Amino acid sequence: MDVGFIGLGSMGKAMASNLIKAGHALRVWNRSPEPANDLVAAGARALNHPAEAFAGDAVITMLADDDAVRDVVLREGVLDAAAKHMVHVNMATISVALAQELVAIHKKRGLAYVAAPVFGVPEAARAAKLNILAAGEEAAVSRVQPLFDAMGQKTWPLGPEPHRANAVKLAGNLMIGAAVEAMGEATALGRAHGVSSADLLDILTKTLFPGPVYQRYGASIAAGTYEPAAFKLRLGLKDVRLALQAGDATHVPLPFGSVLRDNLLAAVAQGDGEKDWSALADVAHRRAGLKG
Amino acid sequence: MDVGFIGLGSMGKAMASNLIKAGHALRVWNRSPEPANDLVAAGARALNHPAEAFAGDAVITMLADDDAVRDVVLREGVLDAAAKHMVHVNMATISVALAQELVAIHKKRGLAYVAAPVFGVPEAARAAKLNILAAGEEAAVSRVQPLFDAMGQKTWPLGPEPHRANAVKLAGNLMIGAAVEAMGEATALGRAHGVSSADLLDILTKTLFPGPVYQRYGASIAAGTYEPAAFKLRLGLKDVRLALQAGDATHVPLPFGSVLRDNLLAAVAQGDGEKDWSALADVAHRRAGLKG
Amino acid sequence: MDVGFIGLGSMGKAMASNLIKAGHALRVWNRSPEPANDLVAAGARALNHPAEAFAGDAVITMLADDDAVRDVVLREGVLDAAAKHMVHVNMATISVALAQELVAIHKKRGLAYVAAPVFGVPEAARAAKLNILAAGEEAAVSRVQPLFDAMGQKTWPLGPEPHRANAVKLAGNLMIGAAVEAMGEATALGRAHGVSSADLLDILTKTLFPGPVYQRYGASIAAGTYEPAAFKLRLGLKDVRLALQAGDATHVPLPFGSVLRDNLLAAVAQGDGEKDWSALADVAHRRAGLKG
Amino acid sequence: MDVGFIGLGSMGKAMASNLIKAGHALRVWNRSPEPANDLVAAGARALNHPAEAFAGDAVITMLADDDAVRDVVLREGVLDAAAKHMVHVNMATISVALAQELVAIHKKRGLAYVAAPVFGVPEAARAAKLNILAAGEEAAVSRVQPLFDAMGQKTWPLGPEPHRANAVKLAGNLMIGAAVEAMGEATALGRAHGVSSADLLDILTKTLFPGPVYQRYGASIAAGTYEPAAFKLRLGLKDVRLALQAGDATHVPLPFGSVLRDNLLAAVAQGDGEKDWSALADVAHRRAGLKG
Repeated sequence: MDVGFIGLGSMGKAMASNLIKAGHALRVWNRSPEPANDLVAAGARALNHPAEAFAGDAVITMLADDDAVRDVVLREGVLDAAAKHMVHVNMATISVALAQELVAIHKKRGLAYVAAPVFGVPEAARAAKLNILAAGEEAAVSRVQPLFDAMGQKTWPLGPEPHRANAVKLAGNLMIGAAVEAMGEATALGRAHGVSSADLLDILTKTLFPGPVYQRYGASIAAGTYEPAAFKLRLGLKDVRLALQAGDATHVPLPFGSVLRDNLLAAVAQGDGEKDWSALADVAHRRAGLKG
Repeated sequence: MDVGFIGLGSMGKAMASNLIKAGHALRVWNRSPEPANDLVAAGARALNHPAEAFAGDAVITMLADDDAVRDVVLREGVLDAAAKHMVHVNMATISVALAQELVAIHKKRGLAYVAAPVFGVPEAARAAKLNILAAGEEAAVSRVQPLFDAMGQKTWPLGPEPHRANAVKLAGNLMIGAAVEAMGEATALGRAHGVSSADLLDILTKTLFPGPVYQRYGASIAAGTYEPAAFKLRLGLKDVRLALQAGDATHVPLPFGSVLRDNLLAAVAQGDGEKDWSALADVAHRRAGLKG
Repeated sequence: MDVGFIGLGSMGKAMASNLIKAGHALRVWNRSPEPANDLVAAGARALNHPAEAFAGDAVITMLADDDAVRDVVLREGVLDAAAKHMVHVNMATISVALAQELVAIHKKRGLAYVAAPVFGVPEAARAAKLNILAAGEEAAVSRVQPLFDAMGQKTWPLGPEPHRANAVKLAGNLMIGAAVEAMGEATALGRAHGVSSADLLDILTKTLFPGPVYQRYGASIAAGTYEPAAFKLRLGLKDVRLALQAGDATHVPLPFGSVLRDNLLAAVAQGDGEKDWSALADVAHRRAGLKG
Repeated sequence: MDVGFIGLGSMGKAMASNLIKAGHALRVWNRSPEPANDLVAAGARALNHPAEAFAGDAVITMLADDDAVRDVVLREGVLDAAAKHMVHVNMATISVALAQELVAIHKKRGLAYVAAPVFGVPEAARAAKLNILAAGEEAAVSRVQPLFDAMGQKTWPLGPEPHRANAVKLAGNLMIGAAVEAMGEATALGRAHGVSSADLLDILTKTLFPGPVYQRYGASIAAGTYEPAAFKLRLGLKDVRLALQAGDATHVPLPFGSVLRDNLLAAVAQGDGEKDWSALADVAHRRAGLKG
């Protein structure tokens, strides 16, 4: 397929690379041009303007946040120039509110819009092992299924309304944050009783709590090492905010989400925003007077 | 070994049964005599008084809570009559404070005391697949290791101070409660956006959150069915209280624990105390105005 | 003084009326024209467009929320046409972020901007008993001081940076919300022990907690009557959101604010958004299984 | 009246002194004998054993906490020796559970029991300005009314069940704690926006929040000075725990109470347990990265 790709951060670049490997013709654009170079070397064509990405069979956008989506996709002239038969696949983690706004904007222009946020770190993206949450009109999702197959291990269909996929993504990130905070509190309790974080988490992640989330962030907490960041704490805060906003808009109180936001803010206030978001455990430990 | 066994609830009975199968000589006592009958049929000897259980190589107590331990183990004459070479293995989920008190009481009498709380439901107990958290003097733990081997899939050593095993058990239960609340909030958020609890949890428990906790309680939440209870909500509340008390005594704030306690109390106030503790999700859903 | 006045809700109308009584020449505008009629009868001149209000010595805006301010004050042509010597006094409860944005916008146009949010219900506004929190350049505040004197019992100066007044207003509303929730929890505890809300609050508001907040909202809770609303719960939720946003932007965790938001959302989800915000107590009582 | 008085801390001593001034015959006992000396100089008789205090018309107990009450009042022989016509007036802040236990114990012995906890600091006790919450059988309360009149500015009757007075006392202390935390969060928000704690609290305590609680603790927060303590933080924690226990026993979730407990624990963990409990504000400020 002829595919435009916008947003070449560590996730986007890995995903675009897998599309090239699968034989798709990629035209790529990124705000800063450097990340495109490797992809061009692998056969992609670099674009000068994001509008040019909306010309082929599909365009994938993998931008950092709501602001970036507004700045690039809703930039004057971008959607107006889009090919009518094209499918826009937005794979970024954005707010439910923006997803709903984008649905309306695309509908008005007769453009197909699919929301397809993913679960998976850059390593999983490189290995084409992402889990893709896909929502949008069935015909549109079907057309881009080959692209999903090239980037992910599985596509999870969530029906015709795109914003549902975003809600599931935010709910999942809320659960990740809750797992991290739970490990932070459990290890504070353990340490106060003479059990090291490593011993406690070794038992719990090998028995009740297997799986990537507990193991990845548990390893950081066990080691007490939060740099380099697998996922930056300030980005975790951004995602928790989005979950709380989605809850607020539909009158869903999320008390764990509220505690998470407060603790993440405390972490940022204490200078830990650029660390891994498992540094939440440090907030829990400091609060209990336990040394780092 | 010649083993006394006190406390034949669904967990205790399964554990005692596995000890008999492994060839140990069991002498059993329970407050109500019925549960002993099946074990007697399998070869155990029923006792008339708990003091008689403290006569052999080891005695295992698997009582319901702190009050039951006080009532049975600290009953006048019970520990005073204990054989000096015997090891008392307390496998119940009790408070850290009572564990520390029991250590002192045993020490004064020259009796060996091992704390060995377990992770695992009755089904795991029957299959001899418990995870056993063992803490106490090394010599004492070694002597009862054959008993652990007959009841569990693995023994996790936690050093010489018995209360540490209790702290880890309570920290683990706190993490279980947190996982349940997180699923409750995530599914409330999903439902408010048109995604069923079943769809959301199917994705999350097959990707980021595998393992027995998310799968067992997730299945209840997906089905919206909280009876019969795998683990009663009021017992979950009891364990969260114990974690909070252990935190309080060592000045460890546990904000997730506090939210859990408040939500569990709300559940009990609304008549859900005898349901499975995944009924926490119902609290989250009702709070958001979502119908059951 | 020649004063433009925009926003004639129950607060604005009372404030404008007091300015007329004090001898100022009022030119008034409101989105719906009816509220202007009484003021015209008292001597004000009704305007056809908000831009016309920005022509005299000062313009006071008393709009409902951020959106209304954006829609009216930032409407194309409004600020561009403003008289250069004029002082814009924004007395509405708006976000700190919008206050900062308005400061920059006015500065660019060489216009004086004073933030002057108020504490006081419509009754206090009618009696010219408002407490006015005023921040902005000293010269500008001095020029409009006669207007403040006509509307309030006291002006509290908060220095040259306008957004500080908004921060204090939001902090004050957070404290009001906290007082209401505290009464809700205290009366739930009392009722569960056989003490009526009326008895408990009679004691507490006549001893430790005198003052308008505890007395007004305490009276509603004592009576269990939340209609008609002195201050609508959904507006309380709006203000708590603004406090949380101001905290978020400066990395200030506000755990009471978070609890308030969650409980207010639960109230709205259960259909109480139009009731008085003391209906928060109902959330606390229902959560405890206490009947209304 | 012939009155026994047990517990001569700063509160008890001042109360006993006022009884002497009012012409009552006081017989006093305290664990450490020194505090009795001044009272003996004023006309009281010092006792050698608490049992001797239960001999006259009434005995007032003003002990530090549940443990002290158990240790002194429930000491073997104390209640057994009590005069049958006597009224025991327990004015300490104790748990609802202990109050209920004491009711049962007194009833079994045919002794009258009145709960009469107070609102007021030592200064108010010295000035005979306490607010007394009195609950117990009407005849018993009437008999000791002259004593209340000598110690307080007003007696608030709470009906025949003693524990109700304790519940109101705990609910009131919960509201005090909530007011302090609210000031801590509000001033953190203010400071982050350039408003000093002193300026913010000056406005709020002179407008919306008059009264002794906001003024006393607000003054400490404004000054950032938490020593010497008007009321020690660790005692505030004790009282919040008692409120939470009373809530727990009746299934009343108290989310503000939970936040308070967590923040008070954090304060103790950071070494502030002996400071005034307005040092809660320091927890709020530190959490936001604001320097002391």
